[in-house]
Amino acid sequence: MAKMKAKALPTQAEDFSAWYNDIVYRADLVDLGPVRGTMIIKPYGYSLWENIQKNLDAMFKATGHENLYFPMLIPMSFFQKEAQHVEGFAPELAVVTHAGGKELEEPLAIRPTSETIIGEAYSRWVQSYRDLPLLYNQWVNVMRWELRTRPFLRTTEFLWQEGHTAHATAEEALAETRQMLDIYATFAEEFGAVPVIKGEKTEGERFAGALMTLTIEAMMRDGKALQSGTSHYMGENFARAFDITFNDVNNEQAYAHTTSWGLSTRFIGAIIMTHGDDKGLIMPPKLAPYQVVVLPIYRANDEAAKAGVMAEVDALAAALREQGVRVKVDDREGLSPGRKFNEWEQKGVPLRLEVGPKDLEQGVAQLADRLTGAKEAVALGAVAERVPAALAAFHEALLERARAYRDEHTYDAASFDEFRERVEDGFVYAPHCGEPACEEAIQEETKATARCIPLEGPSAEGAVCIRCGRPSGYERKVVFAKAY
Amino acid sequence: MAKMKAKALPTQAEDFSAWYNDIVYRADLVDLGPVRGTMIIKPYGYSLWENIQKNLDAMFKATGHENLYFPMLIPMSFFQKEAQHVEGFAPELAVVTHAGGKELEEPLAIRPTSETIIGEAYSRWVQSYRDLPLLYNQWVNVMRWELRTRPFLRTTEFLWQEGHTAHATAEEALAETRQMLDIYATFAEEFGAVPVIKGEKTEGERFAGALMTLTIEAMMRDGKALQSGTSHYMGENFARAFDITFNDVNNEQAYAHTTSWGLSTRFIGAIIMTHGDDKGLIMPPKLAPYQVVVLPIYRANDEAAKAGVMAEVDALAAALREQGVRVKVDDREGLSPGRKFNEWEQKGVPLRLEVGPKDLEQGVAQLADRLTGAKEAVALGAVAERVPAALAAFHEALLERARAYRDEHTYDAASFDEFRERVEDGFVYAPHCGEPACEEAIQEETKATARCIPLEGPSAEGAVCIRCGRPSGYERKVVFAKAY
Repeated sequence: MAKMKAKALPTQAEDFSAWYNDIVYRADLVDLGPVRGTMIIKPYGYSLWENIQKNLDAMFKATGHENLYFPMLIPMSFFQKEAQHVEGFAPELAVVTHAGGKELEEPLAIRPTSETIIGEAYSRWVQSYRDLPLLYNQWVNVMRWELRTRPFLRTTEFLWQEGHTAHATAEEALAETRQMLDIYATFAEEFGAVPVIKGEKTEGERFAGALMTLTIEAMMRDGKALQSGTSHYMGENFARAFDITFNDVNNEQAYAHTTSWGLSTRFIGAIIMTHGDDKGLIMPPKLAPYQVVVLPIYRANDEAAKAGVMAEVDALAAALREQGVRVKVDDREGLSPGRKFNEWEQKGVPLRLEVGPKDLEQGVAQLADRLTGAKEAVALGAVAERVPAALAAFHEALLERARAYRDEHTYDAASFDEFRERVEDGFVYAPHCGEPACEEAIQEETKATARCIPLEGPSAEGAVCIRCGRPSGYERKVVFAKAY
Repeated sequence: MAKMKAKALPTQAEDFSAWYNDIVYRADLVDLGPVRGTMIIKPYGYSLWENIQKNLDAMFKATGHENLYFPMLIPMSFFQKEAQHVEGFAPELAVVTHAGGKELEEPLAIRPTSETIIGEAYSRWVQSYRDLPLLYNQWVNVMRWELRTRPFLRTTEFLWQEGHTAHATAEEALAETRQMLDIYATFAEEFGAVPVIKGEKTEGERFAGALMTLTIEAMMRDGKALQSGTSHYMGENFARAFDITFNDVNNEQAYAHTTSWGLSTRFIGAIIMTHGDDKGLIMPPKLAPYQVVVLPIYRANDEAAKAGVMAEVDALAAALREQGVRVKVDDREGLSPGRKFNEWEQKGVPLRLEVGPKDLEQGVAQLADRLTGAKEAVALGAVAERVPAALAAFHEALLERARAYRDEHTYDAASFDEFRERVEDGFVYAPHCGEPACEEAIQEETKATARCIPLEGPSAEGAVCIRCGRPSGYERKVVFAKAY
């Protein structure tokens, strides 16, 4: 996590990675934490997370889920109970060995994810089929000790929600797994304006302990993929490991079928890299900390002009807030309007409303659009009505732009040579044999990975593997891309 | 944390402590975590916390505060920088020594509170008086390795909010400290129906590193006090320890003045013990997970009656939800109405609405009040209007009841013998010399502590210390009580 501030923002074309590492600090989303790989999420970034939480949480509750809270410290022995799970997570654990001035009898891990501690509780909470389903979620911090970290994309500590459900049948659990993927996809597109491909992970990319991992994959503006949310079907794996059994309708003992699903502060990275441009961030209106910034414009020391402008600015802000619009009035003294323009442009506030003495003479305010740069004069009395419509249109335009970008950078490949070339520039749909060794070979040769077997997409019937020529192992072509 | 379920709920009079330890599990607020001293906050308890968060957060934002997030792991060396702070917290730290499979170069503490890591960041964020004030808050988990733990009251891990502000002057910081105490007091009374005494802690009871600690103290139904929220003025202590300096208006370097203030899941304990009775919990309506439980009543197998009742129940629930009322429809099959009554009574839902065939014939529903046990027939068309009014009245009655209980158990003492007797039964206002040794002697002899020097209350002018006879050290009589 390098911090740069003195120079100009790098362009996306010259160095996308440098652009990202610069804009997250410039736009005041984060600061570095004192411990390697940690970040301070600053108010402008945290507000984005609060809006993500609020809207996603409402979708969870509307589908019958409740929130609860499990302890953060998990006995190390819990991880041993599910063989694949421990293999996946043990290397990344942060471990508490001392507390209250003494060495602990058993070391405790800070949760990297909570299947184990929740599985132990579910085994006590579930006795009969009448106790099922359990539909719970928690909003918490988790810790995975990663070597290479970048703000939002990969940090040792991050914030997320993790849903954990238990069901009487495989069918119900699978339906839940799919439902939560649909919720993530709907949320990403309808709130984040981030178009996503829904699909299933190949065996090698599955969550440690899952029978099936569903994912939403988004394309960043450098053509790379970002996994933005996942939903896992565990089958009976965790139920067997933690003894989550129940008496079914026939009074026979059965194992529960469990799922888990999560979306994290990584989604902020998706927003930044799906929408941002060379001027900085572009915030999707429904999640934007501020949807409109209002700039009062008057000459320094012209107190009469200032009074008139500020009175109108306050009235407009109040009228907008009454419409439910999130408004920031930038009335800081001693900063030029130009400097304020640049700052809010960089921070990606969707709309800018300028009010100066000349505007007031004409009874208008100037409404500027961060995406197109277009500016329109809006009658003062019409602002409160115009802004919500402009925000709705902004959302649609942003989503359309992202879809168009993705479509322009999505390819078929007739040969592995073409695959190799195309995958440098975006997503490639290609048939694959399904062999883990062949998938690994592709990764070694191209740095691209199988992002998912898409739920919808071109058929691979009768096709042969893009690399090895064996018959396709899946019904559909696999989406390959370089990924974060 | 002992768990009991088989027997009847102990009465408060026979064993208040056993009543508490039993009701938190019976009402399904918590479960035990696998690690000593930790708790799982179950959905019914967590929903209470969500309502606390939502309402308190709105009060913070209305007074100009923003949320952010600081990393949970703090380098051990940070604690050394403020001498009193390290003395207060070092014995309770949980320490991460290994991560990613390796021993760390420097051990990391899980935050017990975040003054140190925030102080380090503020030193970088503040350069000029123009950068001040910083008005930030975070909602997080913290860890203090306590030996004796009880759900909500004292757990090794708990949830809270911690506000941290920095100001240019002592006056501003003191005003902030007082403002946040007022917000806690207003919140406790207007949302929790928990009456509180606002006061200042004596020197011995101050937060480690603070120059002044303000507190709200509530009386539980066993006469003991529960500290329910605190607001600290740090002076320049943390600014000097972490070098939070700025150029003031005269371009001279000065230290910032900082504050911090917190309210935790402990407040759930205050709600339980301020309002609960021998039947179980009584939830304050504004924070209650469910404000009304609707019970459809019909004979098993009477499908016609069931259909009619359920249609009306659904219509009533929809009408109530439209009024913003939090409604639970208990339509579980195979459970008698009596069993459902008892369960919701124990869980303390303020109002119960019963709808049966006889009620429908008369065009009414029966509305029962958890506090008084009173039942009234309400015309079906009037329910949506009646319930919000009944909830408002319930809140007032609950607050009044708690105030009356506190006033009945609040005493003056003319002698130390009387003090000793009275403090077994509630709060005692008594003059005190202000000497820490004398305060400790009182604690040793009576187990009571100085809860606070109240901001309002009887004068101690010319009075002498209740124990040692030296002149009063404070303007007012001190509030003494046994405490959680």
